Amino acid sequence: MTTENETPLAGASSAEGLLAAHLAEQAGRFLRNLPDVDLGTLRRVDGTLHGFGALLEPLWAETMRGDLAALVVTLGQERGYTRRLGRLLAAVDSLTCTDAGVPTPRTAADPARPADSPVGGLLAHHPGAPKARAMLERQLTLARSRSHTAALQELGSSRFHSLADRMTLLVSDLPLRDPAGNNPPEQLLSYAARTGEALEATVSRLPLHRAVQPYNGDALHRVPVPAAEVNAIAAHEDAAWTRAGAAVRYARYALEVCRPLLGDRTEEPLAGLAQLAGQLERQQEAADAAEAASLAARTPRITPATAYVLGVVHADQRLEVEAARHAFSVSWPDFHSSGWLTDPWLARST
Amino acid sequence: MTTENETPLAGASSAEGLLAAHLAEQAGRFLRNLPDVDLGTLRRVDGTLHGFGALLEPLWAETMRGDLAALVVTLGQERGYTRRLGRLLAAVDSLTCTDAGVPTPRTAADPARPADSPVGGLLAHHPGAPKARAMLERQLTLARSRSHTAALQELGSSRFHSLADRMTLLVSDLPLRDPAGNNPPEQLLSYAARTGEALEATVSRLPLHRAVQPYNGDALHRVPVPAAEVNAIAAHEDAAWTRAGAAVRYARYALEVCRPLLGDRTEEPLAGLAQLAGQLERQQEAADAAEAASLAARTPRITPATAYVLGVVHADQRLEVEAARHAFSVSWPDFHSSGWLTDPWLARST
Repeated sequence: MTTENETPLAGASSAEGLLAAHLAEQAGRFLRNLPDVDLGTLRRVDGTLHGFGALLEPLWAETMRGDLAALVVTLGQERGYTRRLGRLLAAVDSLTCTDAGVPTPRTAADPARPADSPVGGLLAHHPGAPKARAMLERQLTLARSRSHTAALQELGSSRFHSLADRMTLLVSDLPLRDPAGNNPPEQLLSYAARTGEALEATVSRLPLHRAVQPYNGDALHRVPVPAAEVNAIAAHEDAAWTRAGAAVRYARYALEVCRPLLGDRTEEPLAGLAQLAGQLERQQEAADAAEAASLAARTPRITPATAYVLGVVHADQRLEVEAARHAFSVSWPDFHSSGWLTDPWLARST
Repeated sequence: MTTENETPLAGASSAEGLLAAHLAEQAGRFLRNLPDVDLGTLRRVDGTLHGFGALLEPLWAETMRGDLAALVVTLGQERGYTRRLGRLLAAVDSLTCTDAGVPTPRTAADPARPADSPVGGLLAHHPGAPKARAMLERQLTLARSRSHTAALQELGSSRFHSLADRMTLLVSDLPLRDPAGNNPPEQLLSYAARTGEALEATVSRLPLHRAVQPYNGDALHRVPVPAAEVNAIAAHEDAAWTRAGAAVRYARYALEVCRPLLGDRTEEPLAGLAQLAGQLERQQEAADAAEAASLAARTPRITPATAYVLGVVHADQRLEVEAARHAFSVSWPDFHSSGWLTDPWLARST
């Protein structure tokens, strides 16, 4: 929450003016935080360039987005491995219940915190558990330190310095498509509505009818295709959920840009988008963790007991994926029926 | 459904008369079916002796029940292994999607048919899948043929012949506690209500608050206990669900005895009990299958790839357990609130 309690439309002389103010604020935050890099800020700048690109100098915006994306991937990897490690060790511990902690519910403040396994205690006293845990810890710690090195190199690269220079420029001078442009501020709302429409279209391609049934209902998940295509279809479906995550982010960041126009009325839809984002993040992290467990099981010369535990962990994380998709599919209809998704003006009348 | 469209109370001169007629019918069916043994008939006789034991000669009823239980266990094992084998091979096939069948929803007629795995396709092309499949097939086929031998021995035993003799007796002469007993037919309803109360008490000890949340909600499943006790607690919980299965059967069979008193009005509660029974059977079979996968993974000298697949199958079947418990916990409140469970007279007024 960056701008609070504004009077709606205060100081909003034009769409361009509001957009420039929003990007200046994000860029300022990025620069103040250096040498730490806040990925949220980078994603917000990228999302703003995406949602309101029609108002911006096209070549500049495109180059900027490419560099932002590369930076987010490189810096995000280290954090991703850290979270994946935490998630997988928590899964092994929960499955083996070697830790005697009290239940700690996942909170709204940390929607992506790994949950205890729904099949907790399944592997209590299993001889393979300590070795599997050690193997996951070793492999993911190694991957994390490799991505740490890559992140340090990126931060010393000329590409990063060029990006920082452009962020400095952004504080004062936003490259506009029409430098004399003076569109009405409400135009931002129609651009935001387009990100809402895109989100709607992306979600419409998800198999929500299946996910909304707990445990995927009965027998709806067998795909009537030759074995050779199964991997491709599963990967295709995972990718559709990943795209939904990006679409939620874009809609969220675009609405944030409109906050000066809509004031406190954006709070409810933004809270809804934050919840959806948390659910999709959780499904993404669980899918990545399942993949890591599967990869670890292909390590040469591991014992059958270790492999067995990794198999259980893999299935357990895919179950987390299903649980998160189920949560999303339950939240979505309410959120969607509010209608503001494709008409942010609705937020005014609530 | 053995008796259809009776006029309520037709020919019901006494509780003893109705009970004798019901047991004579079951015994007749058992004898006509020989040498095949219908386990459902045996369970119905056992359930009737359990629910209406207060009217029967105690020593005879107790001995009969002991012999029936031994026979059901011995004959049930072969069928159990057959179903477990089918379930586990279907799970491996669904996880690897080597079969390109169309989805075949589980039907009301066969509620315990193994469903496709909710994490279907997870193991597509996994090198361990064929070996794991072959190992499960070999081990369970062996166990099944051993229990087949035991069943044949049981059917040739003096215990079985003695039981068959007593079944013949049952067609004409039910050993009553009071041979001159002539209680009002409605007394059967109060005995049936006791099986309903027992079911209510058994279910009240199940963790339904957790099962009713899809995927067990978040973080509610970690048991705050030392690792040494986790296995004991998990086994304890599994046993509680097994007891619920028995309690549903007893309530169902007791209500069937009351059908001549209540007529068609028993149809709805009996359908409800059949649904609950199917859900509990499914959770029982999945729990047994998970145990079998875990056991197979302890085979000496298996490859890590095989063990990995067995780990996935184990977790997959425990997920089926959770799904079936969830389904039960969703069905139960409606069924319970109908009230006839503890007052079968309610079935008259619906």
